[in-house]
Amino acid sequence: MNVLLVYAHPEPRSLNGSMRDFMVDRFVRARHAVEVSDLYAMGWKANLDADDFPRRDATQPFSPIADSKRAFAEGGQSPDVAAEQHKLRWADLVIFQFPLWWFSMPAIMKGWFERVYAYGFAYGVGEHSETRWGERYGEGVFEGKRAMLVVTTGGWAEHYSERGINGPIDDLLFPIQHGILFYPGFDVLPPFVVFKSSAMDTTRHNETLSALGARLDNAMQAAPVAYRSQNRGDYLVPALTLKPELGANRIGFALHRQDERASDLAG
Amino acid sequence: MNVLLVYAHPEPRSLNGSMRDFMVDRFVRARHAVEVSDLYAMGWKANLDADDFPRRDATQPFSPIADSKRAFAEGGQSPDVAAEQHKLRWADLVIFQFPLWWFSMPAIMKGWFERVYAYGFAYGVGEHSETRWGERYGEGVFEGKRAMLVVTTGGWAEHYSERGINGPIDDLLFPIQHGILFYPGFDVLPPFVVFKSSAMDTTRHNETLSALGARLDNAMQAAPVAYRSQNRGDYLVPALTLKPELGANRIGFALHRQDERASDLAG
Repeated sequence: MNVLLVYAHPEPRSLNGSMRDFMVDRFVRARHAVEVSDLYAMGWKANLDADDFPRRDATQPFSPIADSKRAFAEGGQSPDVAAEQHKLRWADLVIFQFPLWWFSMPAIMKGWFERVYAYGFAYGVGEHSETRWGERYGEGVFEGKRAMLVVTTGGWAEHYSERGINGPIDDLLFPIQHGILFYPGFDVLPPFVVFKSSAMDTTRHNETLSALGARLDNAMQAAPVAYRSQNRGDYLVPALTLKPELGANRIGFALHRQDERASDLAG
Repeated sequence: MNVLLVYAHPEPRSLNGSMRDFMVDRFVRARHAVEVSDLYAMGWKANLDADDFPRRDATQPFSPIADSKRAFAEGGQSPDVAAEQHKLRWADLVIFQFPLWWFSMPAIMKGWFERVYAYGFAYGVGEHSETRWGERYGEGVFEGKRAMLVVTTGGWAEHYSERGINGPIDDLLFPIQHGILFYPGFDVLPPFVVFKSSAMDTTRHNETLSALGARLDNAMQAAPVAYRSQNRGDYLVPALTLKPELGANRIGFALHRQDERASDLAG
């Protein structure tokens, strides 16, 4: 299979650097094709702005949506963006690896999504009307592909547990997993989360890599997170609220999963 | 009072641009002092990297935490970062205004937090041990100051409602409001959220500005979101889980509020 690893850490000589190298090696040994988008090494431009659209009419106000739509449709995107879209189309599995900074991905990766996820590519796909709200949340350009987060954090697992002060890690990652990955059609695998990343001795480092390797080996067989598809009957249109008879006794993000909440995190 | 507006939109001739101008005018008319950090206009560098620490030992691996700690303690930060910290210390009220892109703030603003929120300034403050986990979540450098999000999104209010497909807006904003603002001590005001931002006629535009103005006029009197303080007895240490007798019948982010969930959003 084809694997794309989108990687955001500024220092190769780090836990994240060693995990990245381990993953590439693991995939290569299994005879998979691997591409790495090492965002810091590439000097990735994080800020979405008018410069991303070299052919736009500079006398008009810049519209992130309208200019993206036009450039994507007419082939007028900047080359770095088009190259990343090409990698995404090629990949069967996409891994997004990053340290959790302020409870989300680093800015450089957020900017990768903002610029690469063009209108007509990752959003604004399909009919949008009072009876139909596009192909998204389970449909879209990445349908049939899989995505997985690999995340490190200095905090303890308890701090990210169901009653932990930071909030449950599954909920903190929901805007990414559901809102960024499931939205354009990825099947989202449970995240691989490393806690206490700044206090890592050799034993736990080896255990972590071993657990990560097992997850990678099983990536195309594992069950994805059971998010509900938008267009398969669970939601009212156009309000897009979950139908009243579904999700009884649940609130919040958990409403949008068909199963009970899973806890499938590395310690 | 002193107001800092941290603003992230690439086009001044936009709804966000008009809201920003309206806010500045409103504060000036009320004889408040206003500073605007217009991140796109400033060409703000989003990517936290080794270049942020000009005096660091370049032979050593770059550590976002250790290098930040050293530079903050020794006065070796880059001037753009130090200038923003100075504005934060000066402000009584800080407003963060941005379009919701992929269910969070734009990369340029995320990178503002990553770079300005130095170790020893916004995190890593106070004793960290088995019995004490720093001054955070209700304590810290911004204690006594207020912060508020002003957010626009193209989606409908229903899509962000309790059972809406995107997830409840309060939960989507929790990683920012609780994890980025309450963490270093801000009192967090309920967000001002504008839905259907791309379909805004003159009537609704005027109504929106009017509602925003009322929120600004009341910003120093309004009740902040009732997040639970870490160090005032609600959490076990060092697990930092909410004590078993608290938050009965709740799950997820709502556990970390002392009150019932409020819905105080502009339509």
